[in-house]
Amino acid sequence: MSSKRKVAILGATGAVGQRFIQLLQGHPWFCVEVLAASERSAGKKYKDACNWTMESNLPPEIGEMTVTDTNVEAVEKAGNVDLVFSALPGDLAGPVETEFAKAYPVFSKASAHRMDKDVPLIIPEVNPDHLALIPVQRKLRDWKGFISTDPNCSTIQLVISLKPLMGFGLSQVVVSTMQALSGAGYPGVPSLDIIDNVIPYISKEEEKLEAEALKLLGSFNGKEVRNASFKLSASCNRVNVKDGHLESVFVKLDSNPSVEEVEEAFRRFQGEPQRLKLPSAPEHPIVVKKEQNRPQPRYDRDEGKGMSIVVGRIRKDPIMTVKYMCLGHNTIRGAAGAGLLSAELAVAKGLA
Amino acid sequence: MSSKRKVAILGATGAVGQRFIQLLQGHPWFCVEVLAASERSAGKKYKDACNWTMESNLPPEIGEMTVTDTNVEAVEKAGNVDLVFSALPGDLAGPVETEFAKAYPVFSKASAHRMDKDVPLIIPEVNPDHLALIPVQRKLRDWKGFISTDPNCSTIQLVISLKPLMGFGLSQVVVSTMQALSGAGYPGVPSLDIIDNVIPYISKEEEKLEAEALKLLGSFNGKEVRNASFKLSASCNRVNVKDGHLESVFVKLDSNPSVEEVEEAFRRFQGEPQRLKLPSAPEHPIVVKKEQNRPQPRYDRDEGKGMSIVVGRIRKDPIMTVKYMCLGHNTIRGAAGAGLLSAELAVAKGLA
Amino acid sequence: MSSKRKVAILGATGAVGQRFIQLLQGHPWFCVEVLAASERSAGKKYKDACNWTMESNLPPEIGEMTVTDTNVEAVEKAGNVDLVFSALPGDLAGPVETEFAKAYPVFSKASAHRMDKDVPLIIPEVNPDHLALIPVQRKLRDWKGFISTDPNCSTIQLVISLKPLMGFGLSQVVVSTMQALSGAGYPGVPSLDIIDNVIPYISKEEEKLEAEALKLLGSFNGKEVRNASFKLSASCNRVNVKDGHLESVFVKLDSNPSVEEVEEAFRRFQGEPQRLKLPSAPEHPIVVKKEQNRPQPRYDRDEGKGMSIVVGRIRKDPIMTVKYMCLGHNTIRGAAGAGLLSAELAVAKGLA
Amino acid sequence: MSSKRKVAILGATGAVGQRFIQLLQGHPWFCVEVLAASERSAGKKYKDACNWTMESNLPPEIGEMTVTDTNVEAVEKAGNVDLVFSALPGDLAGPVETEFAKAYPVFSKASAHRMDKDVPLIIPEVNPDHLALIPVQRKLRDWKGFISTDPNCSTIQLVISLKPLMGFGLSQVVVSTMQALSGAGYPGVPSLDIIDNVIPYISKEEEKLEAEALKLLGSFNGKEVRNASFKLSASCNRVNVKDGHLESVFVKLDSNPSVEEVEEAFRRFQGEPQRLKLPSAPEHPIVVKKEQNRPQPRYDRDEGKGMSIVVGRIRKDPIMTVKYMCLGHNTIRGAAGAGLLSAELAVAKGLA
Repeated sequence: MSSKRKVAILGATGAVGQRFIQLLQGHPWFCVEVLAASERSAGKKYKDACNWTMESNLPPEIGEMTVTDTNVEAVEKAGNVDLVFSALPGDLAGPVETEFAKAYPVFSKASAHRMDKDVPLIIPEVNPDHLALIPVQRKLRDWKGFISTDPNCSTIQLVISLKPLMGFGLSQVVVSTMQALSGAGYPGVPSLDIIDNVIPYISKEEEKLEAEALKLLGSFNGKEVRNASFKLSASCNRVNVKDGHLESVFVKLDSNPSVEEVEEAFRRFQGEPQRLKLPSAPEHPIVVKKEQNRPQPRYDRDEGKGMSIVVGRIRKDPIMTVKYMCLGHNTIRGAAGAGLLSAELAVAKGLA
Repeated sequence: MSSKRKVAILGATGAVGQRFIQLLQGHPWFCVEVLAASERSAGKKYKDACNWTMESNLPPEIGEMTVTDTNVEAVEKAGNVDLVFSALPGDLAGPVETEFAKAYPVFSKASAHRMDKDVPLIIPEVNPDHLALIPVQRKLRDWKGFISTDPNCSTIQLVISLKPLMGFGLSQVVVSTMQALSGAGYPGVPSLDIIDNVIPYISKEEEKLEAEALKLLGSFNGKEVRNASFKLSASCNRVNVKDGHLESVFVKLDSNPSVEEVEEAFRRFQGEPQRLKLPSAPEHPIVVKKEQNRPQPRYDRDEGKGMSIVVGRIRKDPIMTVKYMCLGHNTIRGAAGAGLLSAELAVAKGLA
Repeated sequence: MSSKRKVAILGATGAVGQRFIQLLQGHPWFCVEVLAASERSAGKKYKDACNWTMESNLPPEIGEMTVTDTNVEAVEKAGNVDLVFSALPGDLAGPVETEFAKAYPVFSKASAHRMDKDVPLIIPEVNPDHLALIPVQRKLRDWKGFISTDPNCSTIQLVISLKPLMGFGLSQVVVSTMQALSGAGYPGVPSLDIIDNVIPYISKEEEKLEAEALKLLGSFNGKEVRNASFKLSASCNRVNVKDGHLESVFVKLDSNPSVEEVEEAFRRFQGEPQRLKLPSAPEHPIVVKKEQNRPQPRYDRDEGKGMSIVVGRIRKDPIMTVKYMCLGHNTIRGAAGAGLLSAELAVAKGLA
Repeated sequence: MSSKRKVAILGATGAVGQRFIQLLQGHPWFCVEVLAASERSAGKKYKDACNWTMESNLPPEIGEMTVTDTNVEAVEKAGNVDLVFSALPGDLAGPVETEFAKAYPVFSKASAHRMDKDVPLIIPEVNPDHLALIPVQRKLRDWKGFISTDPNCSTIQLVISLKPLMGFGLSQVVVSTMQALSGAGYPGVPSLDIIDNVIPYISKEEEKLEAEALKLLGSFNGKEVRNASFKLSASCNRVNVKDGHLESVFVKLDSNPSVEEVEEAFRRFQGEPQRLKLPSAPEHPIVVKKEQNRPQPRYDRDEGKGMSIVVGRIRKDPIMTVKYMCLGHNTIRGAAGAGLLSAELAVAKGLA
């Protein structure tokens, strides 16, 4: 690769936008060219427009960049862009991403287009073949660019853990989540709501989990994605944890594997990002913990620089086949890191 | 009732023991006569022996009582006792309770004897008829007293919610818990373990839930309890909440009731304690919350003075029949309040 | 008192407004007649306009009341009001309270008018004589009503503890606060800002503490209040506690009293509310804790139904004279309870 | 340096011991040779003896080491040791360290010997000249080794911030601390004590702060250390933060410098470790934050890899001269990192 691709980040001042900036520091393929945010921020220096909430310091050269408005003209005026990461809030993302996709590859963390028939919903280790929807989409919409989407944070980690179980004949998944505060963005959850408390409801989260998992594990027939045929039921909770969603998973598997076979399937799981050695790919997409009280968010969320998911407590289930715990870093593997890895995959495949 | 029954509390300095003392203040039927604890505490004033962690102040007259050693002789020397509440740790409880039961009715919060064939495991609203095991036990063991046990905290609230569902043909229960810190006693969970974290493991908790629920909802045939025939799978987690266990429950019901029918069954549920108007019986054993983000531990754990359980988010389930959230105050309904209500029921039935 | 005074609450949907509603339930002198809030809420039922965050349930009859807009016409149309409690945010309170004060006694929790020369800033136990500013104010402004203000939450508890020390010749006060989340209102502090953290800054808090304490402990000469002459330095911090501000206080006292003398002064302190037996007056304005690790917010904030302040750890100081810890419930004694007690005092003195 | 010095860690399984192991990974001058702990742990593999609570994974080769008993014979049998780090609990440390010091340089984090007349209490940036007590001590006690001690965690960060203020004529220091949970070791503070709470007491902490600061900033006259002459008053609190002590500091300075002059003194402060470029020396011993709400524990504790202290909110004080906030990582700069830097200094000076 002769020189780095220049990227624009839409929604650059939000929590996911900040994580994109952090993960793009020193990236071998991409460099930050344009930071776009709301009208209120446009024209300001990034350091003045943004309430930086990452634990690592704001890179000074990023802090000095001027934020632009979130439209194609403003972004093109601000720089020469090769591709776009969208960390826009769901309600704004729809039409804005459509506008950008006419000219640019758009990798979106927003939910707006995830379930569009011709838009790929991608986890690079799980369904890299679904990227083949991109030429379908371009032709259909007569676009030079395209939209590729990443799933919801709680979906990503669950589906990575389900992928190696498909070979056992996955038929049912029951999942109860304990999701971190950062999943609600910033300012997000008021402290008065969560101190000494759990909130057993996250708007639209269960619906997203139940719908997206089937598309992700569905099969692409050259024209469209057919949903997988298993059934999934989710119950989603917000807990007082900064980062890292933890999920109690119960699965029914037709071939009734042993705990050891399931553990082995988790351990040996490798995807296209590992084979292609993509820059953001973790060596182990799934890390198995043997301690009886792991994975735990604070200890395990940073495995594989936040790009591995961590499973543990795999055990036989009296009703289903096995149950286990599954943890992922919701703003890295579940958000900005997911977008980055999808873009790397698309670049590696010559699509962006 | 001419005068109050005098009670001894075993394990009086621990978290459950303290809650017993708090709930017995002003009780119309019972009064605290003897406080027993470990050798280390024996001989001290209660206020010096105990690290009082209730939010309400330690009643001064209790604080001045002298703590006795935990054996029959010491307790008999300290006072004239009618019945015994045991809040002993599980490992000690077995032989000590046996000793006391030779002469006294023992209502135990410990797990030691819960699964003994001739020992009733009681939730007064759920299986009051199982108290009929007491004469069986007395005869078998040739005791003047007896042991009656209360279930594990996470079991009690779940089983109260399951009881009104039995009429719909309960066949499967999947439950994932988010349990409060006080469930681990004091000092219990180190703060360094739980800050910004969830611990997906509680020793023996899943096993207790899976075993006790079947006994509680089983049927008594005059001689013994036959386990209920549904299946239950549990996954237990510790979260950073002071009091109040929250549970995601997924149930399969043969008759496929609607959400409204399930809600109605919860609402109209009444048990023997309500019919007998026992002093500690909540007016509504199950309170149904309609807000989409309830029940929540901090807001709802004190419903019915901590003796009601609270359910909410009842909804259809894509795999099972319905799913819902269930909350209970683990140290009131789940511990000391449970013991108290069981004793009240036994007294009302002339058994103690 | 023949019948209850009818009150309007301005800012009724906010955190302090909710606390007013809670404390006014069953009040012997006052009843809630009108609930006023922002335009957005006006016309809605209170239960729909408000995100109720008190642990006790919203009283159903309050929930059914219709919220009115926050101006004199709307309030007069909604009911016949005798006096007004203002829980308005500081920036709105200024002109709105002025408008209401032309016709009604206004008891305000807002900071807008606290330092106005002719407006009393009142803690009923500390400076009840300052209420004599009311006739001064009425005459000067030609109003039928008036404005009386309550201090900032962190000021109230500190100044109650300083009042009995005035007799020892108070010359210097250094205070470092650890303030609760509810002091910032709702939604207030984002959970992502406070988990595993302390925020060493609260906007304008140090300035308020330093200015208000001098006015409160100043002397009224019949025309105006002359500031007290001691000096005060404050450093204010936000900690991860729901309710209850805790303060490390260091004081220099000219007469160099012993620890016992200071403790005795705290203990025997009584104010006008105690002498008049006002409905919201705590029996002991200051409760002294002798345990070496108290007061603590969770255990002690509810002393005197949240209207007592709690001091402890009184000890000699190597630089000043003594140091001690001081705790108060910031939304009861520090906010709604303060307004209520001020209004009770004014009523008892025939001023409202 | 031809080869690395081999070190023994006493108290290796505790929180500070674990941090020593973490910080010694890849250290250019030192390598871990012996891990000593209590009898209960002796003979076990470190990974089995220790409940590893660092967020980074336990280095596998350390996990496989066999833990030895804590006495000279056992340690000498286990390896060839050049120097000893003691992370022993205070009550055990006294005689054990004396035994080791007869033969080895002992760098101790325990409080046992800190105030001994001939034992240096060292912060390398503050009083490196006090290391000259070592030959005095050796001669006096006729030892081949020696004991050098590190101050209490809350003292270290405060005193580093006071050192550059000495030039302004420091006469009084008032400090109120908000200290992290990890300062109490493991299991340490029970979660039930700290959830929704602050504990305004830490055993012996105020006494340590008040005594150690004077010795550290005292002057060495060739024979002994004369205490500095300023006065210090401390009030110590435990807050719900994992790592990082935050302190509100009020100081009286004779020469009445401006805020800018104080800030400049903090900024330009450099010590011997910086001049000698010791491996663990942070580039900036004091980092000044200009944001009005910093330093904050979660964001700033890792400055300089946890070896910098961070100050902010420098402002004029109405009573003293200036006030400011001061933050330090209590288990790195305040514990294991302090010991390491002291040992590096001693090695660089040819003393160990």
